[in-house]
Amino acid sequence: MNASEKLKKKNEEGKFICVGLDTDEEKIPQYLKSITNPVLEFNKKIIEATSEFAAAYKINFAFYEKLGSKGFDIITQSLKLIPKDLLVIADAKRGDIGNTSKYYAESVFNYFGFDSITINPYMGEDSVKPFLEFNDKLIFILALTSNPGADDFEKLELNDGSYLFQKVIEKVHQLNSEKNCGIVFGATKLQELQENIDSFNNLPVLLPGVGAQGGSLEEVMKLFIIKKRFDLLINISRGIIYKDNSPNFALSAKDEIIYLNSQVNKLLKK
Amino acid sequence: MNASEKLKKKNEEGKFICVGLDTDEEKIPQYLKSITNPVLEFNKKIIEATSEFAAAYKINFAFYEKLGSKGFDIITQSLKLIPKDLLVIADAKRGDIGNTSKYYAESVFNYFGFDSITINPYMGEDSVKPFLEFNDKLIFILALTSNPGADDFEKLELNDGSYLFQKVIEKVHQLNSEKNCGIVFGATKLQELQENIDSFNNLPVLLPGVGAQGGSLEEVMKLFIIKKRFDLLINISRGIIYKDNSPNFALSAKDEIIYLNSQVNKLLKK
Repeated sequence: MNASEKLKKKNEEGKFICVGLDTDEEKIPQYLKSITNPVLEFNKKIIEATSEFAAAYKINFAFYEKLGSKGFDIITQSLKLIPKDLLVIADAKRGDIGNTSKYYAESVFNYFGFDSITINPYMGEDSVKPFLEFNDKLIFILALTSNPGADDFEKLELNDGSYLFQKVIEKVHQLNSEKNCGIVFGATKLQELQENIDSFNNLPVLLPGVGAQGGSLEEVMKLFIIKKRFDLLINISRGIIYKDNSPNFALSAKDEIIYLNSQVNKLLKK
Repeated sequence: MNASEKLKKKNEEGKFICVGLDTDEEKIPQYLKSITNPVLEFNKKIIEATSEFAAAYKINFAFYEKLGSKGFDIITQSLKLIPKDLLVIADAKRGDIGNTSKYYAESVFNYFGFDSITINPYMGEDSVKPFLEFNDKLIFILALTSNPGADDFEKLELNDGSYLFQKVIEKVHQLNSEKNCGIVFGATKLQELQENIDSFNNLPVLLPGVGAQGGSLEEVMKLFIIKKRFDLLINISRGIIYKDNSPNFALSAKDEIIYLNSQVNKLLKK
């Protein structure tokens, strides 16, 4: 199964939640901190508890790069723990000139073996293309992000009346000849989501921002359900992995994703 | 000395060339390939040969991430070889929501100990700010990049008649309360450089694109000299480190940077 097929399959099973492994040594339960590799052990317990219910996992590179080369090894080891039928996204926001993007792509896809990556489009077409050459992968390009700073540039109005993020979506469609592009759209930007969802066509959508950042799972799902339009992942990081800071954290994470799935499935049945 | 002072000092010595360590296992001389750590050995020889003449070094993260955790270790080991009076830039093009950018900054500044980083501004103010909290560092924010794709978004015209990259420069000035911001401006974009150089004010400028990408050292230097405006680094990667593919590569790199410095100094004396 290629990356897009993995996503479709999970969506068909009623699974839309992407578990964000933003694992922070400082935030994991105290009792884990004395063992050799607390971040890996935390990820192991979260993955074991949630993989039956998750649609995907997203590894936020910054949390691992903070630990240097050891962090990169933890990424490698964590990936081995994730069942192969689940999409795994490198949330790395990479992008550079062509000869450099090529090596970022080789790092994420060949060295680590991810199914998918997040990409920053600022530097334009030749910065994105080397990723797209991996035609069995799924490349999520930032359109409108979930953070307040999205207003600074992404929402600037261009001289033709459109917004920068809309120009990015337009470009993504042009670059999608291999059908391996997706977009990132903030779950916190509900109005813009409503106004722009038709322009996404069939592009898979990764929606961060539910939970700690204030986005609503229910509101986002409703919009996609009305449009009968799936191929989507709603990422939740802190809301699942730090739901509970006791030694029971993995069980609480499991309960939370089961609860979230049931909420989604209630909406789907309506 | 903080990062800005390091840059000023080197510029005062007539040194403006930043050596880009885009070290590629596939491109280094054949005879190195049989040793244990060819990339590190290559960097060692280049640094030893050029550090007397360079203004700075730039480490292009993609070339190391391609090698995974071993690549991160090569970055650490390469940094130890660079004399402490030289600015060292993490060319990583990072940027994410605040809590994530914070950890990218900790990785580059605390774990690796770089003086400086390149940052992608697409996600706006809160994605840039965590880097700026390191007030002894120098944060180079992408304005107009050297690649063809710069036309796709960076050069889009906004509804007020300005270009996106000009809006970025405006924002950089607003964020520069600690005087630790700089910008990246492609040496290949000579006309735009000429038209916008006055808007840079005192921001340090990192100019990639001379050499393999087609930018002219002479034309770029002339513009800055006319304006009596320094705090600048002209990055050259392939044009120095791959000048010669024989076992004499380090000597050739040294000759090349000495030649480039002499060209610059001829222009300065005019």
